Amino acid sequence: MIEIDDPADPRLDDFRDLSTADRRPDRPGGRGLVIAEGVVVVERLLDSPYPVRALLGVRRRVEALGALPAPAYVTSAEVMAEVVGFHLNRGVLAVADRAPQSDLAGLVASSRRLAVLEGVGDHENLGSLFRNAAALGIDGVLLGPGCSDPLYRRSVRVSMGHVLRVPFASLPDLAEGFDLLRHNGFTVAALTPRADATGLADAGLRGRKVAVLLGSEGPGLTEETIAAADVAVRIPMAGGVDSLNVATAAAIAFYAIA
Amino acid sequence: MIEIDDPADPRLDDFRDLSTADRRPDRPGGRGLVIAEGVVVVERLLDSPYPVRALLGVRRRVEALGALPAPAYVTSAEVMAEVVGFHLNRGVLAVADRAPQSDLAGLVASSRRLAVLEGVGDHENLGSLFRNAAALGIDGVLLGPGCSDPLYRRSVRVSMGHVLRVPFASLPDLAEGFDLLRHNGFTVAALTPRADATGLADAGLRGRKVAVLLGSEGPGLTEETIAAADVAVRIPMAGGVDSLNVATAAAIAFYAIA
Repeated sequence: MIEIDDPADPRLDDFRDLSTADRRPDRPGGRGLVIAEGVVVVERLLDSPYPVRALLGVRRRVEALGALPAPAYVTSAEVMAEVVGFHLNRGVLAVADRAPQSDLAGLVASSRRLAVLEGVGDHENLGSLFRNAAALGIDGVLLGPGCSDPLYRRSVRVSMGHVLRVPFASLPDLAEGFDLLRHNGFTVAALTPRADATGLADAGLRGRKVAVLLGSEGPGLTEETIAAADVAVRIPMAGGVDSLNVATAAAIAFYAIA
Repeated sequence: MIEIDDPADPRLDDFRDLSTADRRPDRPGGRGLVIAEGVVVVERLLDSPYPVRALLGVRRRVEALGALPAPAYVTSAEVMAEVVGFHLNRGVLAVADRAPQSDLAGLVASSRRLAVLEGVGDHENLGSLFRNAAALGIDGVLLGPGCSDPLYRRSVRVSMGHVLRVPFASLPDLAEGFDLLRHNGFTVAALTPRADATGLADAGLRGRKVAVLLGSEGPGLTEETIAAADVAVRIPMAGGVDSLNVATAAAIAFYAIA
């Protein structure tokens, strides 16, 4: 633990201006570091494969964390606010380098239940979806075209740190991905509000290897993607209600296939 | 439609300083008017029993609404922002008076599936829960001790206006409420992450009259409340994961009893 009281101290540069920290032209791919906010999420980061670079917090919060693999800068809430650019009521932060994504073929081969996403661009929805995946026993998430970055600061926070625990891999070509999934014994089930889809409970998915295919809130899955799946399933919904939030719909589907 | 270009026009007073509009000492109970933001939510307000007082919007959004029961003030996005106190990217607002809550005994008598909440004080969680209730066929929501006001502006917005459609009633005394529910043939099922609770799918709830009892995120239901329910049920969860968001857990329970 290293006490710092000068907000301009260069050792705090990783924590500076967090509201713009997701874009770092100086970093590989122009993407920011992984940032964990609050004790619970910081603990998940410390348990993750991401190499922690440093921590910053008020003494009480840092001390609550136990043994640390990197320097922990201890300061006041006021200095923290000045460094990060806004008042932070969680009292502790950690930053880590990114790590390579899971290998797609390896992740598929070692999983029984997967989520496959198309066009989930909203960082909060993506974070919530990872939290629900972790709680409901999903082994991994495949990120199809149009998905945003799960390691964005807001996604990490909304996921309660579960983006750091649930493996994910990019799936740039959905058709190739479906072939890989089928080769590994998966049924690809597209979740859609379409009236001609099979009710989730009637599709015989429970106990099978299932990849649940989910689209963004609003437009949902493309017609082409639904047609390429093995089965289209729907959550029975009351008349006149627009579809559920994508993370909520995902949670129901994850529960139904568990 | 009445054109207004002066942000100080007193006809716009109902729309002024929306970030503090939930507290109105001049109104009955000190609570604010019902405020709907955006075309979808305004349409739900227009379809609701709440008496609309006025609308405010840019011409394009107001024209999209069709016939209106109250004066619609048309102005620029800049004047709107000045009146409400922040930039609003939804382009139309409506305000309505509050209306009496549903009669508790009547709501219970006419329902088959209800949600009963204890200590759900977070306005966003409450709004999400109403949205999920509407989508998944819940007939009404009973608000036990410690719940916040579903007509708070943020709840209305997060619910996508469904707090204006799903009937709700206050339930100040849970024990009396459970008696009323049982008298009407309901099984009271407490949702809890406790390991000794029955799995949701194994509790035989599907097709019965069920009141799902839900506590706040974090502390959850009190021990006393769980003990007073007819059955304690849980969502099977992966090890090491803190419980789901209350609105998400509610959605899974609503799905499971449908």
